[in-house]
Amino acid sequence: MLKVAILGGSGYTGSELLRLLSSHPHVNVTAVTSERSAGILVSDVFINFRNPHLKFEPLDLSSLEKKADLFFLCLPHKTSQDTVAFLYNAGKKVIDLSADYRIKDAKIYQEWYNIPHLYTHLLKKAVYGLPEIYRKQIKKSSIIANPGCYPVSAILGLAPVIGKSFLDTNSIIVDSKSGTSGAGRSPAQPFMFCEVNESVRAYSVTTHRHTPEIEQELSSISRRKIKIIFTPHLMPMDRGILSTIYVRLKKDIKLSDVQKLYQEFYKSEPFVRVLKNGLYPATKAVKGSNFCDLSVSLDRRTGSLIIVSAIDNLLKGASGTAVQNMNIMYGFDETTGLTASSPSP
Amino acid sequence: MLKVAILGGSGYTGSELLRLLSSHPHVNVTAVTSERSAGILVSDVFINFRNPHLKFEPLDLSSLEKKADLFFLCLPHKTSQDTVAFLYNAGKKVIDLSADYRIKDAKIYQEWYNIPHLYTHLLKKAVYGLPEIYRKQIKKSSIIANPGCYPVSAILGLAPVIGKSFLDTNSIIVDSKSGTSGAGRSPAQPFMFCEVNESVRAYSVTTHRHTPEIEQELSSISRRKIKIIFTPHLMPMDRGILSTIYVRLKKDIKLSDVQKLYQEFYKSEPFVRVLKNGLYPATKAVKGSNFCDLSVSLDRRTGSLIIVSAIDNLLKGASGTAVQNMNIMYGFDETTGLTASSPSP
Amino acid sequence: MLKVAILGGSGYTGSELLRLLSSHPHVNVTAVTSERSAGILVSDVFINFRNPHLKFEPLDLSSLEKKADLFFLCLPHKTSQDTVAFLYNAGKKVIDLSADYRIKDAKIYQEWYNIPHLYTHLLKKAVYGLPEIYRKQIKKSSIIANPGCYPVSAILGLAPVIGKSFLDTNSIIVDSKSGTSGAGRSPAQPFMFCEVNESVRAYSVTTHRHTPEIEQELSSISRRKIKIIFTPHLMPMDRGILSTIYVRLKKDIKLSDVQKLYQEFYKSEPFVRVLKNGLYPATKAVKGSNFCDLSVSLDRRTGSLIIVSAIDNLLKGASGTAVQNMNIMYGFDETTGLTASSPSP
Amino acid sequence: MLKVAILGGSGYTGSELLRLLSSHPHVNVTAVTSERSAGILVSDVFINFRNPHLKFEPLDLSSLEKKADLFFLCLPHKTSQDTVAFLYNAGKKVIDLSADYRIKDAKIYQEWYNIPHLYTHLLKKAVYGLPEIYRKQIKKSSIIANPGCYPVSAILGLAPVIGKSFLDTNSIIVDSKSGTSGAGRSPAQPFMFCEVNESVRAYSVTTHRHTPEIEQELSSISRRKIKIIFTPHLMPMDRGILSTIYVRLKKDIKLSDVQKLYQEFYKSEPFVRVLKNGLYPATKAVKGSNFCDLSVSLDRRTGSLIIVSAIDNLLKGASGTAVQNMNIMYGFDETTGLTASSPSP
Repeated sequence: MLKVAILGGSGYTGSELLRLLSSHPHVNVTAVTSERSAGILVSDVFINFRNPHLKFEPLDLSSLEKKADLFFLCLPHKTSQDTVAFLYNAGKKVIDLSADYRIKDAKIYQEWYNIPHLYTHLLKKAVYGLPEIYRKQIKKSSIIANPGCYPVSAILGLAPVIGKSFLDTNSIIVDSKSGTSGAGRSPAQPFMFCEVNESVRAYSVTTHRHTPEIEQELSSISRRKIKIIFTPHLMPMDRGILSTIYVRLKKDIKLSDVQKLYQEFYKSEPFVRVLKNGLYPATKAVKGSNFCDLSVSLDRRTGSLIIVSAIDNLLKGASGTAVQNMNIMYGFDETTGLTASSPSP
Repeated sequence: MLKVAILGGSGYTGSELLRLLSSHPHVNVTAVTSERSAGILVSDVFINFRNPHLKFEPLDLSSLEKKADLFFLCLPHKTSQDTVAFLYNAGKKVIDLSADYRIKDAKIYQEWYNIPHLYTHLLKKAVYGLPEIYRKQIKKSSIIANPGCYPVSAILGLAPVIGKSFLDTNSIIVDSKSGTSGAGRSPAQPFMFCEVNESVRAYSVTTHRHTPEIEQELSSISRRKIKIIFTPHLMPMDRGILSTIYVRLKKDIKLSDVQKLYQEFYKSEPFVRVLKNGLYPATKAVKGSNFCDLSVSLDRRTGSLIIVSAIDNLLKGASGTAVQNMNIMYGFDETTGLTASSPSP
Repeated sequence: MLKVAILGGSGYTGSELLRLLSSHPHVNVTAVTSERSAGILVSDVFINFRNPHLKFEPLDLSSLEKKADLFFLCLPHKTSQDTVAFLYNAGKKVIDLSADYRIKDAKIYQEWYNIPHLYTHLLKKAVYGLPEIYRKQIKKSSIIANPGCYPVSAILGLAPVIGKSFLDTNSIIVDSKSGTSGAGRSPAQPFMFCEVNESVRAYSVTTHRHTPEIEQELSSISRRKIKIIFTPHLMPMDRGILSTIYVRLKKDIKLSDVQKLYQEFYKSEPFVRVLKNGLYPATKAVKGSNFCDLSVSLDRRTGSLIIVSAIDNLLKGASGTAVQNMNIMYGFDETTGLTASSPSP
Repeated sequence: MLKVAILGGSGYTGSELLRLLSSHPHVNVTAVTSERSAGILVSDVFINFRNPHLKFEPLDLSSLEKKADLFFLCLPHKTSQDTVAFLYNAGKKVIDLSADYRIKDAKIYQEWYNIPHLYTHLLKKAVYGLPEIYRKQIKKSSIIANPGCYPVSAILGLAPVIGKSFLDTNSIIVDSKSGTSGAGRSPAQPFMFCEVNESVRAYSVTTHRHTPEIEQELSSISRRKIKIIFTPHLMPMDRGILSTIYVRLKKDIKLSDVQKLYQEFYKSEPFVRVLKNGLYPATKAVKGSNFCDLSVSLDRRTGSLIIVSAIDNLLKGASGTAVQNMNIMYGFDETTGLTASSPSP
């Protein structure tokens, strides 16, 4: 049994990790930390959990490092920088759900996150934890930078075609719609029920921090410098991200040929489903599951490709992919603990 | 592997059964019927399912009876009466999720359902499928009348005390609040999004068919003739039932003593959680799980007991209990396939 | 034009008052206070407002008293006690939306609110501001204790029959379901979107402070000492209260006779609608309006009356009734500024 | 008093029209038709209405033509074609909320609506009823083609800049998010509560009928042939459309200069609000009102303009604009009956 710890377990990604790992057959959760809830039973904070013994503990790394071999970090950025470094130096493996080790270029990191990166030598060792793109590297790495929720939906939506010559890579727009759990669990006026309910709004227009992350990965896959427009929106629902992606075509191409590229690219992937022609993803169909659903449409009138992707932001967009990465790192079957399909309704 | 069939699989209870049974380690789903969707892939109706081969078939009993040993029936009442009889006579086991075999007294059945019961000899063989009350009888029976969703929440809320002399059994009120999935999947104006959203309403005041079912079971447990007031309400949410139950006390009693009765009654039950003093159930904490959460409060000012119970109407209130009954009937561990805890959020 | 001020205007009742009063033909809003938002444009806090000049100001009574003749108080209890006294002594009229002047018996006030009442002589001058019951007294009073949201739904639901000899007044249960705006606008974890959405829960079971307020008014109307059981529930919706009220009958009575009592009692009331037999109130049908919808049902089986009432908690349950009280106090037509009907949907 | 009739009054736009017109000081609603509800009291279909006498009547034009001078048509397309022609020939004025007289080019109409247009001579007389663009023509016309909900949000979002040389008019993308009331009131499985709630999905990708309508108007304003990409999405909320609009820039331009263009263009408009820099529209802030809120952002990194617009789809997107058009046609103050601001929450 692999011993794992969750650092920062009182938020939604932490609690989803705990839920997934608690029923994973090869894993033993030995510690869960929370500064604000230290000393309190996990089941008193998340009454949906039934484990009667597990308590939140403070983030004391010297005592924690003995308790586990693999650490999931759901900590704020900056804190995560240091903690990853400490654990790596102690010979531990880390799956970091913060943004701290995702951006390879420390200058870009500083530009978007407003703090310097103090461990640039570790940035080189970190692997961007999107299994569909980096499965081999994940297997051998000790530091996994688990991807952001919006980037998962955007990158999986574009990966099969981003390097193709028929795309105008200067014209990519990612219009994303997210459930409110993406905003976290801490009380804040804009995310109170009466503010979010019965409303949709755009936020962080032109400035969202997932922009450089998406650009880095699309550039890396296509081997071209890619800039995108990314606009996130807040939806009146708990979970789910729907990304509608627009790209101009440089050449005429058949829809069926594009769809074949997608089917081919994802044919061995256990968690990506390319929908039949005429069907479009809905976040409800992936809610509670680790799936990413994709549709591809061609707008002949304007010479454009429209890709729609749907994920559960807390699963494929965070904790689900984190567990998938763990499965890959430790040689477990990649779908272990992740086979739940979405309930109806 | 046990071969099972789901008759009436295109509604919400059918699809939840299919979801639970598809990942059950000792079960093989060999057929799913649907009149309106016969010939169509299940995954085209429920795009959350990934089984690429399973198709809905018509309800042709002579061909179906060869395909399975256990049949789950999610059929309309009356249809279920006949189908249960056919399958029983063919030597099959049946878990009937309709109301047809729940009411033991055919006269009361006719009074509330407006049709006669044609198989009164089978009514005697049917066991009311609430494991917490009838576990032993379920184990030996071939016809399980799976309980209604509201009755599960009411009966589990009252069972530990209903026979006690300190209760005034003439004063029981069950005020229940249900998510909209309880109304089924067929299109109807009152359950359109814009009619249900941002609204709560009472319905079937004094006339809901779950009333005699609750009364029958409370009477049976307490060995007294019990009549209740039951009022259901429609909530703007997918899933969940919260029942607030009011009973007058005939004698003074301590809250801690009542709570002990609940803890004692449910101490070996895998799916009933009696909450700590001061906590109250929320449907979200049981959503997606097979749990029933309970709180007990004492109103000294009026000499009353107030019990609050929460279940997921599609799981503990329908398909979850159905699988639990199957586990009992076939000697599987009772929690097999039902260990999911509710996600946050 | 009547000059009015709103003290405590940055919450939901304050902003609804402002919305109603801004379009009232006989009223001029001359000041709106907010401690946390003092100096900020109202339209920057509530972007739905278009008045480009109105700013929140601090609660400085000596400067405020010159600005208006009538003051609406949306302040926390205790603060309201003092402010009402100050304004009354300054010869002003006050409509207090807090609970401070609702409870006539200072001992009961202290018992439920945990602070003493320092102005018991003013308690005697205050009138409970429910127009359907106290219209005449409201007309002549300078201190109106505007009723609580739950009490409005309960008292209007029971007023036509509470004094009748056929009721068992020892058995009254009020089971209320409220939208989340009732919890106010201040950030708090239990009212975050992801905590409230897709969930219903009971709260303050046996301890809610609206209990003695309902009891006081039902006792006063019936001239009997009445105790009730009151249980509030939190709903995943913005607005609306639905109260389901249960009372045992001491004598047999016809439903049509009870319904006549309701129709008679409310026949001249502009804001109470007694629904036709077979229809039940839905909060959506009163949302955005000042109406209270009522249904009356008889449960012959148990000898009980079941009354369902629906209001918009921010309008008939707070700011709407406050404006109605102002109309009465100043001799305006009672429905002025309150004629909006609920939109569909 | 102007006598008006509403043809097709049992849907959501019809009922909103009825609500607005019922409180309009210069208007008398003399007839409301509904085929499915003919003979039934309006207040039995929409229990939010209190008018105790108004009944739905069948669509019998010969009797209806005598009853009113102005007719609002909320009929299905094709039916509307004929009805407009009949009423026009009878010398009546018509505000048509269907799509039948919006598309000036009968060939394009036939291409997108799959039926021929039989009254091309009347198409020429019809004015596209968007007051911010066609106020003068509306004043003099007898046939108003009231705009589609999505087009209102798109056209108002682009009108101030669409003719400017700094825009690349080949790159316009309109990504719209709509509440479910846009789908109408008729029962249909995809719009059942449990299908819509907790989900967001794209629909009619590349094929939505509002596409040519938006293109026609943008082309007309800019005097260039414009094609756009338009993708609608279904949101889990009752009302509101948020459109996020993307356009590439051909030249460098300052954000403040673009914002000035918007402020200038809309400076006399009573219903369009250009938000301060840093604020973005939310549908909740316009819900229940006739406002359109707009924000303009500049993405320097990609040389793009991002405009976000929000309207209430049933008001500014349908019935509100229809009443605004009536006010213009008859010389009433343009905001009469439309001054409601959005409630909080």
